Amino acid sequence: MTAIALDAMGGDDAPGATVEGALEAAAAGIEVVLVGDAEVLGHELNRLTGASAGGKGTPTNVRIVHAPDQVAMGDHAAREVRRQRQTSLYVGMELVKAGDAGALVSMGNTGAGMATALVVLGRLKGVERPALGAVIPAGDGMVLFLDVGANADARSSHLVQFAHLGSAYMEAVYGVTKPRVALLSIGEEPSKGSTLVIETHEALQALGEQGRLNFVGNLESRDLLNQKADVIVTDGFTGNVALKLAEGLVSYLFDSMRVAARSSLRSKVGGLLLYPSLRGVRERLDYRAHGAVPLLGVDGGVFIGHGRSDGHAVASGLLAAQRAVDRGMLPALAASIADGLSK
Amino acid sequence: MTAIALDAMGGDDAPGATVEGALEAAAAGIEVVLVGDAEVLGHELNRLTGASAGGKGTPTNVRIVHAPDQVAMGDHAAREVRRQRQTSLYVGMELVKAGDAGALVSMGNTGAGMATALVVLGRLKGVERPALGAVIPAGDGMVLFLDVGANADARSSHLVQFAHLGSAYMEAVYGVTKPRVALLSIGEEPSKGSTLVIETHEALQALGEQGRLNFVGNLESRDLLNQKADVIVTDGFTGNVALKLAEGLVSYLFDSMRVAARSSLRSKVGGLLLYPSLRGVRERLDYRAHGAVPLLGVDGGVFIGHGRSDGHAVASGLLAAQRAVDRGMLPALAASIADGLSK
Repeated sequence: MTAIALDAMGGDDAPGATVEGALEAAAAGIEVVLVGDAEVLGHELNRLTGASAGGKGTPTNVRIVHAPDQVAMGDHAAREVRRQRQTSLYVGMELVKAGDAGALVSMGNTGAGMATALVVLGRLKGVERPALGAVIPAGDGMVLFLDVGANADARSSHLVQFAHLGSAYMEAVYGVTKPRVALLSIGEEPSKGSTLVIETHEALQALGEQGRLNFVGNLESRDLLNQKADVIVTDGFTGNVALKLAEGLVSYLFDSMRVAARSSLRSKVGGLLLYPSLRGVRERLDYRAHGAVPLLGVDGGVFIGHGRSDGHAVASGLLAAQRAVDRGMLPALAASIADGLSK
Repeated sequence: MTAIALDAMGGDDAPGATVEGALEAAAAGIEVVLVGDAEVLGHELNRLTGASAGGKGTPTNVRIVHAPDQVAMGDHAAREVRRQRQTSLYVGMELVKAGDAGALVSMGNTGAGMATALVVLGRLKGVERPALGAVIPAGDGMVLFLDVGANADARSSHLVQFAHLGSAYMEAVYGVTKPRVALLSIGEEPSKGSTLVIETHEALQALGEQGRLNFVGNLESRDLLNQKADVIVTDGFTGNVALKLAEGLVSYLFDSMRVAARSSLRSKVGGLLLYPSLRGVRERLDYRAHGAVPLLGVDGGVFIGHGRSDGHAVASGLLAAQRAVDRGMLPALAASIADGLSK
């Protein structure tokens, strides 16, 4: 079984949340490599699993690889990366590069994660820009939405590569046959949208006609969760805006409901009775349940999670990475791009 | 009192919904000019207010201006506009141009509305592109979000003009003193975002330092409803994606809740008790309550509503237009742009 490396010093609540998550994932059978300051991590492991905590000690499927430094928030320029080869992030990527880990999961700074992945792992052949792909629950299935923020500016060729990468990911990791690929736009007609979108539509349409992608056309954002596609392609600016808007809106709605439920005795009772069912809806939309999203297009498994991740979110991220590795994510991605180039 | 013209043939449910909305607005004291096929509209008015319906006939503050044609869905190129001068949309704009109406409200095709406005009314001096501004409820106030779809591609100079127009609109129509203007981005730091956003940030920052705009910096989409700004500026592609996503997500959440509330007797009872309070939340986010959004930057009052508008939405649109006209929207917008040019 391939181990999954965890950037144990990355994230707002590291190393508490990361070590906690590693233990949760280890209990589920995952082999975890904690990368970070060995003394700090040893102390944390002892606190959570030691005899004084009534535990049986660190499980055998959790080990530590020492990295003395950690990435400061905001450090993400490539030159910073090259100067800081002792960070938990850098050392973690090296484990992936060397094949000692199948993937790295990091809850740290997204920009730093991307820059380090590009320096240490490089891109898959044929990929100009990697993309962050968010896997979002939609109906009874999942939809891959990308790019959600790896690159704020995009060209048509990038979006076409995202389509190939996303399609390969959903096929390999989620077992979707011929994933339906849609292009996010502001109208279903091919003529609608920005210049970038209109150009990309043309390119994807051609690939669809050649049978090289299952392109289903433009999709409007109101249909994002309507299961009309398995992969939805957009530029990193729009994707990031959409993802954070959804996050903000879900919070806003649940907060408003909480206020509404407090407005009268009648609503209070109603709220209490309804709460257990509503919790399911909220959890389904909760980023923590999904843990971390893949950085597609780099030559190695990299998963980036939310800085605010708690232990459970970290564990979900490790499970997501393990699943992707087990299902051969990387060879599938490489093949899809090579295939795209060859024709 | 200035009359408000209504494109009575525009919208999915016209002329039923438009005439119904006109009557509702008339009952609230608005002088409405129904523009469209006189025979059809006369018949509709008679059906709703005639003796056979137990009514007292058409109210004195509703009149008809005849326009034999109507815009076919999809017709919106400028050349189509020039060929079709007898449409309810075109004739309605001419009433605004001639000063016979303070504004035109249309629930028809947005592209056609924009193209016709540009041909008949033209742009305010100094405006390169008009913008659609959505007024969104946020906390106890309102926030103007623009452009939500007038132009899919934008340049930095356009976004700066949107900032001036939006600021003037919120000041004049909503009485907000020195409206806080924010730029939608994917991080609060000035260096975050697309090339377009980074450039625009610089320009707005400079205007802020000169005291010509109350620029409060970048805003992330998760804070769209958090009352951190009164005006939020973005390009029409991103704005349209965000608006439709919010619409789709609200529907999705309420549908999920309906399903959750049916899952057990306990939840069913809870749902029934909570429903009256939740309805308030939903209505607050319902586009119909807001009716129609201003097309800012054209030389005349133009408000565009949802194609799916029902009578109540049409009435809300007429009220919104009347309010804007009464508060001197157009002179305020013209002054803001002239002021922006002069310095």
